[in-house]
Order: sequence, then C-alpha cells, then structure tokens
Amino acid sequence: MSRSIDLAVIPGDGIGQEVVAQGLKVLNAVLPADVKLETKEYDLGARRWHRTGETLPDAELDALKTHDAILLGAIGDPSVPSGVLERGLLLKLRFAFDHFINLRPSKLFPNTATPLAGRPDIDFVVVREGTEGPYTGNGGSLRTGTPAEVATEVSVNTAYGVERVVRDAFARAQARPRKKLTLVHKNNVLVFAGHLWKNIFDTVAKEYPDVTTDYLHVDAATIFFVTQPERFDVIVTDNLFGDILTDLAAAVTGGIGLAASGNINPTGAFPSMFEPVHGSAPDIAGQGKADPTATVLSVALLLRHLGYEAEAARIEDAVQADLAARDGSARTTDEIGDALAVRVSG
Amino acid sequence: MSRSIDLAVIPGDGIGQEVVAQGLKVLNAVLPADVKLETKEYDLGARRWHRTGETLPDAELDALKTHDAILLGAIGDPSVPSGVLERGLLLKLRFAFDHFINLRPSKLFPNTATPLAGRPDIDFVVVREGTEGPYTGNGGSLRTGTPAEVATEVSVNTAYGVERVVRDAFARAQARPRKKLTLVHKNNVLVFAGHLWKNIFDTVAKEYPDVTTDYLHVDAATIFFVTQPERFDVIVTDNLFGDILTDLAAAVTGGIGLAASGNINPTGAFPSMFEPVHGSAPDIAGQGKADPTATVLSVALLLRHLGYEAEAARIEDAVQADLAARDGSARTTDEIGDALAVRVSG
Ligand SMILES: CC(C)[C@H](C(=O)O)[C@@H](O)C(=O)O
Ligand SMILES: CC(C)[C@H](C(=O)O)[C@@H](O)C(=O)O
Repeated sequence: MSRSIDLAVIPGDGIGQEVVAQGLKVLNAVLPADVKLETKEYDLGARRWHRTGETLPDAELDALKTHDAILLGAIGDPSVPSGVLERGLLLKLRFAFDHFINLRPSKLFPNTATPLAGRPDIDFVVVREGTEGPYTGNGGSLRTGTPAEVATEVSVNTAYGVERVVRDAFARAQARPRKKLTLVHKNNVLVFAGHLWKNIFDTVAKEYPDVTTDYLHVDAATIFFVTQPERFDVIVTDNLFGDILTDLAAAVTGGIGLAASGNINPTGAFPSMFEPVHGSAPDIAGQGKADPTATVLSVALLLRHLGYEAEAARIEDAVQADLAARDGSARTTDEIGDALAVRVSG
Repeated sequence: MSRSIDLAVIPGDGIGQEVVAQGLKVLNAVLPADVKLETKEYDLGARRWHRTGETLPDAELDALKTHDAILLGAIGDPSVPSGVLERGLLLKLRFAFDHFINLRPSKLFPNTATPLAGRPDIDFVVVREGTEGPYTGNGGSLRTGTPAEVATEVSVNTAYGVERVVRDAFARAQARPRKKLTLVHKNNVLVFAGHLWKNIFDTVAKEYPDVTTDYLHVDAATIFFVTQPERFDVIVTDNLFGDILTDLAAAVTGGIGLAASGNINPTGAFPSMFEPVHGSAPDIAGQGKADPTATVLSVALLLRHLGYEAEAARIEDAVQADLAARDGSARTTDEIGDALAVRVSG
C-alpha cells in the first residue's frame, strides 16, 4: 500500500465548496501521520464556464489522470443551461475514466429521520453501471424546434459493459453476510437490453452458487424501496435506473445529505472519483446549512478504494456515532465537519 | 350522451379474472336502469398464448375497435417469456388504439395504510405519455448471446406526441383547484428528448397563465414522492418515467391494490382502455385475496370518460366510504366487490 495519497479536488458549485472542505478536514484528521496527503484543487464548474466557456479542457483532463483519486463536491447551477456541465464535466469524467462501477451504499443510521413509518432496517448497496445505458449521449434531434421535431435517446448496452458490472456486484454480494443480489431492469418492455442484462446475470450467477439472486422490474423495485427496503442487500442495475433508485434510496435513509457515492474504475487504469449523491443546492449555498456527511462518507469510500480500510471504517463509525449523538439542534456545515474530525482522530 | 355502453372485457391472467368480475358487478350496480350495458369478453393473455401461440390476432384487434371502451384486468404470467404478452398484447393495444394519455390518479384515502410516516396529504394525478419514449420497440441486438453483443433501446419523442400530452395535462391542471403542473424528465442527461419536452412545456404554458408550473428531474421527483408528496397536483412525464413514478405513487398511497388507470385516446378515434396499475399477481391468484378496488376505481375513470360523471363520482365516494369504514378484518375479493356494489346502488 502506498503511504502517500495524491488527491485531485473538484469542489465545483454551490454547496460543493463547503462540503468538500469538511471532507478534506476529516480526511486529514483520519490519516496516520506517516501518510503524506497531497491535494490539488481544480477550478471546474459553473464559475469557470461563465468565465472561459470551458467545461473540462483536455489539459485538465490529462492532469486529473495523474492523481490517485478525485474528490468532487457538486456540479451545476441554474445559470448554466441544463446538460452543459452534466455532460461536459461530470459525465465526461465518468466516461473518460471508465468509471463503470457507480457504488452507492444506503444505510438507515440510528437517530436519523426517515420518511418511512416503522423505521425498517435498511442496509443495501446499489451497484449502478456508470458508462452505458441512456447516458452515452447517443441521440439527436431532427427538425429541432418545429412541429415536426423528432428527438431520440439511445440506450447502449454491451455484453462487455454489462458483464463487468454484474461480476463486480456478485463479488460484492458474496462478501456481505446476507449474500443476496437483485437485478433491477425493465425486461418486459426494454426487451433487447433487458435480455442482455438478464442472460449475463443468470450466466454469472452459476459461478456464485452461494449468492441468492432475485429480479425486479424497476417500477416494482420502487414499491419495495418504500414498503420493504429490508429485502435488499446488493442491487445491480443500469445507469438510468440506478440514478433514479439511488435518489429514492437516499430519501428513505434519511436524505440526500447522507448519501455517498464512488465512481470507480476497479482496474486502476484511471483514478476513481468520489462524490456525494446530492447536487449543488444553490438555494442554500454559502449559508453553512449543507450537511457535509455525504461527502465525508464519500471520503470513506475513497479511502477503502485506496486500501485504507481501517481509516474508512473509522470514518463510518464516526458518522454513526455523530448521528446517534445528535440532539436535534441545528449545526453548521463546519460544526458537523469539526465533530467528525474530532471523532476520527480520537 | 348515449344511454348504452358496449364494453369489451379482457380479464387476462391471474387475479385479473377476479378483480374484473368485481369491477363489472359495481358497474352494473351503479348504472341507471335506462342505460343498457353490453359486455363482450375476450380471451386474451397467458392461457390463450399457451393454447394457440397468439397474443392479439388482427381479427380480435379489429373487433375490439368497435366497442365504446375496454376494461382490462391484468396481463402476464411467469410461464410466458418476459415481454411476449406485454409487447404482444398490452402495449400493442395501447399503441394500436393510440392511447396517448395514460392517466393515473393518486390519492391517499382515509384509513388507508401508507408506508410514509406522518400521513401527508396526497392527491395528485400523473399524466403519463402512452405511445412514445422507450416503449416504441425501437431497438435491437447485434451478435446476440456472444461476448460482443450490443443491445440498444431507442426512446422516440416527437413534437406531435409531446405536445398533445402536455396540452392535455395543462387542461387537467387548470380544471383542478390548485392549478399546478410539474414536468418530470431528466433533461440534464437526456438532452435531446429533454429539450423537446421542456420547450413544448414552456411554450404551451404561455397559454395557461393561471397554471403554476414546475420542473423536476426524475431522480429528484422520487425524493419528493416520499418526503413531500403534497407538493404535487398534476404531473406530466414520459412513458418510462411515468411507469416508474406511478408504481411509487401507488405504494405511498396505500398500495397497488388501490391504483387505477386509464389508457385514453381523447379524440375518440379508438376505444380507451381502463385497467388497475397492478399486475396479475400469480402468487395470490384464485384465492380471493386480491383487492378489486383498483379495478373498481378504473371503472369510475371509464364512466367519466364516457360522460357518466355522476356515476363515476358515486363509485369514488363509495370507495372512500368503504375504506373509511374498514375495521382491519380481512375481506375476500368478492366481499369487497359486494360492499362497493351495495354502496353505489344505495
Ligand atoms: C447530475 C447528474 C448528471 C447525475 C446523474 O444523473 O448521474 C446525478 O443525478 C447523479 O446521480 O450523480
Ligand atoms: C406490464 C408493463 C408493460 C406495464 C408498463 O410498463 O407500462 C405496467 O408496468 C404498467 O405500468 O401498466
């Protein structure tokens, strides 16, 4: 294991700045003294686009490649046309660095508000495919802006892309106590993509006889997310279904303020990128109201990915303890970051 | 208004048979004596497919066209390969009869269990596009079954198709007390389809200055469905997002046993089709356990579509009263149907 971490930091827009500062604070506090942490900040996002018109120039894409990992806050602002930063920066990074595993754990921590009555036990992880599906940018518009316009979006699914994410999900399921993997798709309507996913899922399943498997249509899955979330252990699904399900998962486990994610390239060919699931929340930006916990938990995923398992677990324990100790009084972004930094260095 | 109803009935599979019987029972009970009801049953679904290999022969499609409306129970059985009956029967009907309005009201009735703590006020309707999006069957698979397979699904969106559903949704929003319409899409990623939807939505909005408008990405919408469902009045969205959101809506308003839907062609060129949102539930079929309320509420939508507003309202009031009077003891499918039939004829 390398005893140095060379981290690229993209604070981005809105609350991205504030939460990333806390993520770095906790990262510094948790790392043993002999681990050298180097960070380099990249000025990317809405301000940069307004100033220069650039989203992610090649030089910066190349520079980002040289780091061990990337920590990203949030991208997006209402002043930028929808899609410009998403496609030109966030998705560009996920695709350029082949982040085919979009890892999104969901856990209902103690003392955390959930909109669900009866507080079910929730502890599952969504393995969302990150480089295919309707996210590939394959689509177009004909006779744009006229009454005869036709706009298409193509979901692209390959055996290559599906197999690698399905294999990763089986391995993760096997490593967890319950060893259960649910494939979510919509193979009764999206029959071509659906059959590809299901066939590969069933084939790989034979190599994991100890993993219990299940299949749900995406519409039915949303029902179980609110009526019976305890039935899920590991979920594997496509890029768009994963996007939808993980926001819902965040909502039922106490809100998007706690949802962490990793855009992972398990081969190590490119740096993986860790970010909270939430957006830039311009309405509360700059007011110290943002909960940095999702970013701090993303730092835990980052550490685990780089081989710092003990430090990752220490962060997760600190979050758990911090949430359990909450008395309901409002804390600023900074105060939450401080409290977590104290706990991890304890 | 015609004083006769010529109804096609497709009970379909599993609990479809049982719930449709109750729907017809209540329909018979609610209709004034001078309205002549004629029904013709069509044997379509899994059994038919097993027997003859047919899903929906042309002769039957032509015959179905001649009716005033269609009442459908549920289609699908695990013994039939996924997609065969969905594409070959259910979606074939929606597309052949140009059911471009898929209407799905969601209401949290009194005395009804919801998985949501705090019982928010829920009363919204989803206007789901029914003839485009990723449901068009445009897609394919290359090198099927090999490690080099590529499978695509194309979401097709036209100005023609989007404008008519958006107009319908604005008119519905304007007719409701709160006059609010939310467009749900994912225009930061699906930029071509998303811009088409958003542009048409914004253009039509100018004709409805008294309707408050809102836009949400589909992932964010799922969050609000569980944290703040009271914010919704009318929602307009594409075929796939509508599919996902209406199952979630059903779940938060007391379950799929209460969710009604209409596949409507407002031009009257073809018969509209009414069906519960739930599926054929083979696990509980034939046991008298299915709740026929969703089908009975679908009959109310059917009556409203045919101009029998008073009778539609009487059914909805009966359901409301029946749910309010529940004491928690289990009732059979038949008992619920009987209770509703008594209430509407009262
Ligand atoms: C901002 C957007 C492009 C992104 C996505 O759709 O993947 C976000 O919703 C997420 O889940 O990370
Ligand atoms: C059965 C299936 C084809 C259908 C759909 O996806 O539309 C169902 O889920 C629905 O919502 O009516």
